[in-house]
Amino acid sequence: MTQATGAGRPSIGAGRLAHRLSRARHLAVEAGLDALLVGVGADLVYLSGYRALPLERLTMLVVPAHGRPSLVVPRLEAMAARAIPVVEAETVAVVPWDETDDPFALVAGLVERGAGDGGRPVAAVAVSDRLWATFVLHLQGALPAARFSLLSGVLRDERIVKDPDEVELLRAAARAADRVVEGIAHGRLIGRTEVDVSREVRDRLVSEGHDEASFAIVASGAWSASPHHQASDRVIRAGEPIVLDIGGSLGGYGSDITRTLWVTGGDPANGPDADFLAMYAVLREAQAAATREVRPDVPAEHIDAVAREIISAAGYGHAFIHRTGHGIGLEEHEDPYLVAGNPTPLRPGMAFSIEPGIYLEGRYGARIEDIVVCGEDGPIVLDTVTRDLLVVHG
Amino acid sequence: MTQATGAGRPSIGAGRLAHRLSRARHLAVEAGLDALLVGVGADLVYLSGYRALPLERLTMLVVPAHGRPSLVVPRLEAMAARAIPVVEAETVAVVPWDETDDPFALVAGLVERGAGDGGRPVAAVAVSDRLWATFVLHLQGALPAARFSLLSGVLRDERIVKDPDEVELLRAAARAADRVVEGIAHGRLIGRTEVDVSREVRDRLVSEGHDEASFAIVASGAWSASPHHQASDRVIRAGEPIVLDIGGSLGGYGSDITRTLWVTGGDPANGPDADFLAMYAVLREAQAAATREVRPDVPAEHIDAVAREIISAAGYGHAFIHRTGHGIGLEEHEDPYLVAGNPTPLRPGMAFSIEPGIYLEGRYGARIEDIVVCGEDGPIVLDTVTRDLLVVHG
Repeated sequence: MTQATGAGRPSIGAGRLAHRLSRARHLAVEAGLDALLVGVGADLVYLSGYRALPLERLTMLVVPAHGRPSLVVPRLEAMAARAIPVVEAETVAVVPWDETDDPFALVAGLVERGAGDGGRPVAAVAVSDRLWATFVLHLQGALPAARFSLLSGVLRDERIVKDPDEVELLRAAARAADRVVEGIAHGRLIGRTEVDVSREVRDRLVSEGHDEASFAIVASGAWSASPHHQASDRVIRAGEPIVLDIGGSLGGYGSDITRTLWVTGGDPANGPDADFLAMYAVLREAQAAATREVRPDVPAEHIDAVAREIISAAGYGHAFIHRTGHGIGLEEHEDPYLVAGNPTPLRPGMAFSIEPGIYLEGRYGARIEDIVVCGEDGPIVLDTVTRDLLVVHG
Repeated sequence: MTQATGAGRPSIGAGRLAHRLSRARHLAVEAGLDALLVGVGADLVYLSGYRALPLERLTMLVVPAHGRPSLVVPRLEAMAARAIPVVEAETVAVVPWDETDDPFALVAGLVERGAGDGGRPVAAVAVSDRLWATFVLHLQGALPAARFSLLSGVLRDERIVKDPDEVELLRAAARAADRVVEGIAHGRLIGRTEVDVSREVRDRLVSEGHDEASFAIVASGAWSASPHHQASDRVIRAGEPIVLDIGGSLGGYGSDITRTLWVTGGDPANGPDADFLAMYAVLREAQAAATREVRPDVPAEHIDAVAREIISAAGYGHAFIHRTGHGIGLEEHEDPYLVAGNPTPLRPGMAFSIEPGIYLEGRYGARIEDIVVCGEDGPIVLDTVTRDLLVVHG
C-alpha cells in the first residue's frame, strides 16, 4: 500500500527527511524558538513527506525544541498518516484527535512539553507561511505568551537550494510543460474560447505526467496585457497574440513556462504588426540577457535590473509592471524572488523563473518565461521551447 | 471582455454583491470592528465576485467601517480587477501596489482612514479564515493595537443560507458529479491503479462542466478504511470494495459525492462477503435515517446523532470515526457542520453533506454521501445516484 510516486522518478526517502527534520530543529533552537508548527503544504512535504487535503480540520507537524516531532492529524486521517515512511521509521509520532476534541489545546500541550524547561511559558514559535488565519488565531489563543514568527525565517535557506534529485524533478516538470506548449501552439485555437483552451492545457499537463495542473493562463487579444488574466469566454480570433502561462506539479515540484503566440489563421495579412515585433524583440533580448547573467554570487536583484534596463532603454519601462522572476520548487512561487531590493546572492542549485513582460493596456502584451537553475558556471535553462514569437496558424 | 460564467447558469450580479458588501459592513460595525480584511478565496468571491490566483503577493478587499471598500491588488493584476462588475459600478475602488511597495502599510493606512475616528488607533479587525499566516502576521505588525478575529464571525450567518440561484448551482454541480460516478462505475477498473482512476475522475468532472476538480478519492481494498486516502499506485483487483469520494466546483459552487463500489470482474464468487453486506446495510439505513430528519429548527448535531445511534446500535460505533457532514457552497467544507456539540438549528436553504461511514482498519470500509438542502418541509437531496452498494464488473 505505497503512495503514488511515479515510476522512475527520484523520490525523497525517510533518511533524507529525518535529516531535514533534525536540521530544522537545530535551526529552531538556534533562533530561540520553542517549536515549529507546520500545517498542510510545501513545508510539511519538505519536512515529513506527508501530503493531505488542505481542509478545516487541523493537521500539524509539531517540531519541538526537545523530543520527538508529532504529526497531529484528524482521526479519520490517522491511517494515512501512519503509512508514511518517517512515521514507520519512528522519527515522527502520529497524534490523532477526534471530532469533538480541541486540536489547538493538543498542539499547545505538545509545544509546552517539548519546550524543555518545565513550567516556563512558551516564548516563541514559528508557523508555516501559508497556515490559515483560523489556525493562526486559535494557536495564538492557546499559546498566549508566545511570539509568533514565520517558518520561512528558519527554512528559507534550506529550501532555497535544490539538490540534484530536486533539480531532476524540476527538469522533468519543465519538459512536460514544454510539450504542452508545443501541443497547444500546433493545435486549433481560432474560434475557441480561452476557457476551452485553458481546459485543454490542464488536461495536457496531467497527460504529460503532472500530478496536477495549477494554472493555465490563456490571455488573448487585449487581455494579453493582463499578466494574471483568468481565462474568459472571449473567443480567439486570427490576427492577435495569446500569452500562454501554464504550470503544475510533477513529483511535487513545479513547472511554469510562458510563451507568446501570434495567431494568423494562415493568412500572412493577419501576422504581427511592426510595433508588436519591435516590442517582442526588446523582450526577447531582455529575457536572454537576464538569463546570461545567472551565476553564483550575483545578487538576485541584479537579474531583475538587467532585464529592466533593456526594456526601459527601449521606452517600455512603464509597461514592465512586475518583477523578473520567482523561485520555484515545492511551491509555484518561493524564494528567491528576482526583484529590486533583494540582495540575496545566487547560489548553485537555486531555481527560479526569468520572465520579463511588456504590457500595453488597451492594445496587447507579451511575456517570455523559463525556469533556470543557477549552475556552478552559469545558467542551466530547464525549458527547451524556442523563445522566438510563435507565429502559428491557430 | 467578460469573465467566464458558463452558459445558462445563474450568476451573482453587481447589485447583489453591493447588497452583500453593505450588509457585511453593517454587521462589522455592529460587532465593533474597524474593518474587514478579506484575502483571496471564497469570502472575496462572496463579497466582490473577484477571483484571483492564491499567491504570495497580497490581494485584499478592505471593507472599512466608513467609506468605500478598496480592493488592494498587485499592479500586475489591476487590469483584471478593474474589469469586475462591482468595480465598474464604483462600489469598490481598485488600489494597486508595486513590487517594491509595502502592501501591509497600504492596508493599514486604508483601515486607519476608514475607522472614522481620526487619530484613534485601530481597535479591531476581522480577517478571512483562510488568509495565510504570512499575511496575518504582517498585518498584525502593521496594526499593532488591533485585536484580530475571524471573518466567519461576521459572515457565517450570511453565507450559511443559500438563495435559490445558489441552490441551482449546487444542484448543477451535484448532477455533474453524479454522471461522473455513473461513468466510473460502468467503466473498466480492474488492473488499473487508483491514481489512474483518480485522473479519469478529474478529467470527467471537468468534462461534465466543473470549473475544476478539487479531489478524487479512489480508496480500494484495505485503503477503503482510510476516509481521506490519497490515490496510490495500488492496482485494483476483483473481489474488493472501492470508496469513490469526488468533487469540484461548478460556477463557483461545490459538488461532493461518495459511493461505494464492489468490483467482481464478472465472477459472482468475487462478490461482497456477508460481513460487508451486513455492514453496508447498517450504513445505508443510517444515511437514509439521518437524511429523513432534515427539516427547519432541527439542531445540526441531531442529524449526526441519528446516524451515529444506528451505527452504534449495530456494533460499529468505534468504526464511524468522523462527523456526519459539513456545509457546502463556495467552499468544499463550510458551516454548518453536522457534528456533536453543534446546536445550530437548520434553516431553509442550508446545504450540507450527509456522509456516515464505517471503517474496519485492516479489512475494508464504506461511505455514502449526498448533498442535501434543508427545505421548508424536509430534505431536498441533490444527488440522484442510487445509494445501494454498486456491485459492478469493473
